[in-house]
Amino acid sequence: MSSNMPRKAGRHFLQIPGPTPIPDRVLRAMDNQVLDHRGPTFQKLASRVLDKVKTVFKTKSHVIIFPASGTGAWEAALVNTMNPGDKLLMFETGQFATLWHNMAKRLGMVVDFIPSDWRVGVDPQKIEEKLREDKNHEIKAVCVVHHETSGGLLSDVAAIRKVIDACNHPALLFVDSVSGLGSADLRHDEWGIDVTVAGSQKGLMLPPGLAFNAISAKAIKASETAKQPKGYWAWDEMINANKSGFFPYTPATQILYGLDVAIDLLHEEGLDNVFARHNRWGVATRAAVKHWGLENLCRDERFVSPVMTAVLMPDGKGADEFRKIVLDTFDMSLGAGLNKVADKVFRIGHLGDTNDLTIMGALAGVEMGLEVAGIKHNKGGVQVAMASIAAAHQQGHHARVAAE
Amino acid sequence: MSSNMPRKAGRHFLQIPGPTPIPDRVLRAMDNQVLDHRGPTFQKLASRVLDKVKTVFKTKSHVIIFPASGTGAWEAALVNTMNPGDKLLMFETGQFATLWHNMAKRLGMVVDFIPSDWRVGVDPQKIEEKLREDKNHEIKAVCVVHHETSGGLLSDVAAIRKVIDACNHPALLFVDSVSGLGSADLRHDEWGIDVTVAGSQKGLMLPPGLAFNAISAKAIKASETAKQPKGYWAWDEMINANKSGFFPYTPATQILYGLDVAIDLLHEEGLDNVFARHNRWGVATRAAVKHWGLENLCRDERFVSPVMTAVLMPDGKGADEFRKIVLDTFDMSLGAGLNKVADKVFRIGHLGDTNDLTIMGALAGVEMGLEVAGIKHNKGGVQVAMASIAAAHQQGHHARVAAE
Repeated sequence: MSSNMPRKAGRHFLQIPGPTPIPDRVLRAMDNQVLDHRGPTFQKLASRVLDKVKTVFKTKSHVIIFPASGTGAWEAALVNTMNPGDKLLMFETGQFATLWHNMAKRLGMVVDFIPSDWRVGVDPQKIEEKLREDKNHEIKAVCVVHHETSGGLLSDVAAIRKVIDACNHPALLFVDSVSGLGSADLRHDEWGIDVTVAGSQKGLMLPPGLAFNAISAKAIKASETAKQPKGYWAWDEMINANKSGFFPYTPATQILYGLDVAIDLLHEEGLDNVFARHNRWGVATRAAVKHWGLENLCRDERFVSPVMTAVLMPDGKGADEFRKIVLDTFDMSLGAGLNKVADKVFRIGHLGDTNDLTIMGALAGVEMGLEVAGIKHNKGGVQVAMASIAAAHQQGHHARVAAE
Repeated sequence: MSSNMPRKAGRHFLQIPGPTPIPDRVLRAMDNQVLDHRGPTFQKLASRVLDKVKTVFKTKSHVIIFPASGTGAWEAALVNTMNPGDKLLMFETGQFATLWHNMAKRLGMVVDFIPSDWRVGVDPQKIEEKLREDKNHEIKAVCVVHHETSGGLLSDVAAIRKVIDACNHPALLFVDSVSGLGSADLRHDEWGIDVTVAGSQKGLMLPPGLAFNAISAKAIKASETAKQPKGYWAWDEMINANKSGFFPYTPATQILYGLDVAIDLLHEEGLDNVFARHNRWGVATRAAVKHWGLENLCRDERFVSPVMTAVLMPDGKGADEFRKIVLDTFDMSLGAGLNKVADKVFRIGHLGDTNDLTIMGALAGVEMGLEVAGIKHNKGGVQVAMASIAAAHQQGHHARVAAE
């Protein structure tokens, strides 16, 4: 949209793993005059949104909404519940687990960071081993990333809860679901999560700018005695102000207008349908990648992602040069590799407010991009993806015809 | 968007041959308070737009802008220049030529309508024969459709001009370019067109609501003595009011805001680049159709369309049932067959503000739709379309690399 860029016709293909495209109805909801955040109109909006946002986290407890990005919600989870020097158990699923780890260290906490090669999700067995070793219950929280956005790795949070319970360990369970929520199932209450960390710009189909903490009664209890210094992120003032539909400081009013509608859209479609289409795209994308003869960064079927697919570049070719060619030629943004896998992978986002044909266009852009860039691959990846998508719909179509 | 419809994620694929998707910058330009159409702000806007719209028609003469749909611009061309009972020569390229013919008859004119099977464009030789037979110059105008939207047939207007000149015939040349303008080259002055008829909702990337007459000096001269009754469509009052940047009646102010920006977008991209991408999509789409083993309604290479492709359904299968399956399954609108070819063809629009990956998504939707609907076809149409598109870009990419 910059006036220095040549005009490109049609809609940009935003195939990064978030921020994701915003539905027109959400854009229109935010295209509204700003309102008095201490007035009765805002009070009604905020009360409604604070209440219904719980349905997305599948919780009956409290959801805090900060004007912040997801990183802030990580900090909030820690500073509200921990004491300086407290011990945390974390798992190195990739870049976002690493950044959370770094933040905890900056805040003065001690982290046992289970190492990994960024190609698998959380191994519940390794968590169990660590907890069993921890006879004195020094570990105050287990922090895991539900969907690791750097590698496209989905971890089984319910299984992690199970091992914590099996060990009778009192540690809190903190889950980063910034890129999971709204795309992959997340059950805050059922899975016994103490703090779920999320952001607005992925499966919630909103601009960046809101950060969430869904918090359990156990987390709230821990916050009542936690000694870590906190100001902006303090839950108590939030919970108190939220009771009457207000905030202790200026909320991001425009995005709250959008959140109000975005939650409605998720429920109009049905959360199970939302998760089903993400799964369908994950299956189709992996089929295409495999057919091209390229390798998924995720090396274990148990952790494959419905949200995005990270693809390893063959023969030491640079992923960033490839991404540039795709952007210049087809006006499509693919996600960059981060940190350890910088320039080694490109990431195909298949999440949020998108649909089958857009995903097929995106895969066509990757396959044609490989051709234009002169990167060796087997043609026909889009074809196998189409077969996978068509087969899924054929079943549905035949069922509808039979029912008529 | 109706509240009775289940929510569909992502962007609707509007692949009809117009109205076409509106660029976000144009939507934002129209998302403005309505303004006083007799005031100085409007006067500046209208003067600027009336001037720069000429560049799209490639004319230095006058372009009239009516608040109307394209059908109104047909009527305006006739009532401003003809007398009751005047004779016209028309060519039956398809539904839109037929409707123009019907309108001329309603208005009391006599039409020699050269018949055809709706599968070819205008044959200049047949026009020439008719003009040579017309020794007394009874034919007052030759009316042709530049791009026939019912069949996807592009006619060679310059060749038609040539035969009129070769016959030394004084007939006016009227050209309907409703679905041509902004997608296929049109040269009002160079081709000696007397009235070009156009609308806002196709290559101009605007909502329906504006109708255009680009008019030559010869057409204006004819209008000075024409006896056909006219009120709303009268050019003289328009030309007179336009001189100071106003209109004789209330103009469609909001769409004029949009037109101002839409013309800028066409020039930012460059008209030749706009036409080149439409051509690229025509080539790719026809390659896919051929590979599927389906037949293009256009049966002569000379008339193939950069704007849309009409595909004949095989084995007497209903096109409308197929379109319904595609809409229900993939949220894509394909164009219906009209009149003589109703239910026999579906039309794939590849025009306006769209891009390679969207067109690939659309073709994937057609191919997967054929699969879901159980219609016999050869798989791999999208694959040949991708090869065609990638080859076009590979040349460009190699040229850019060589130049760096």
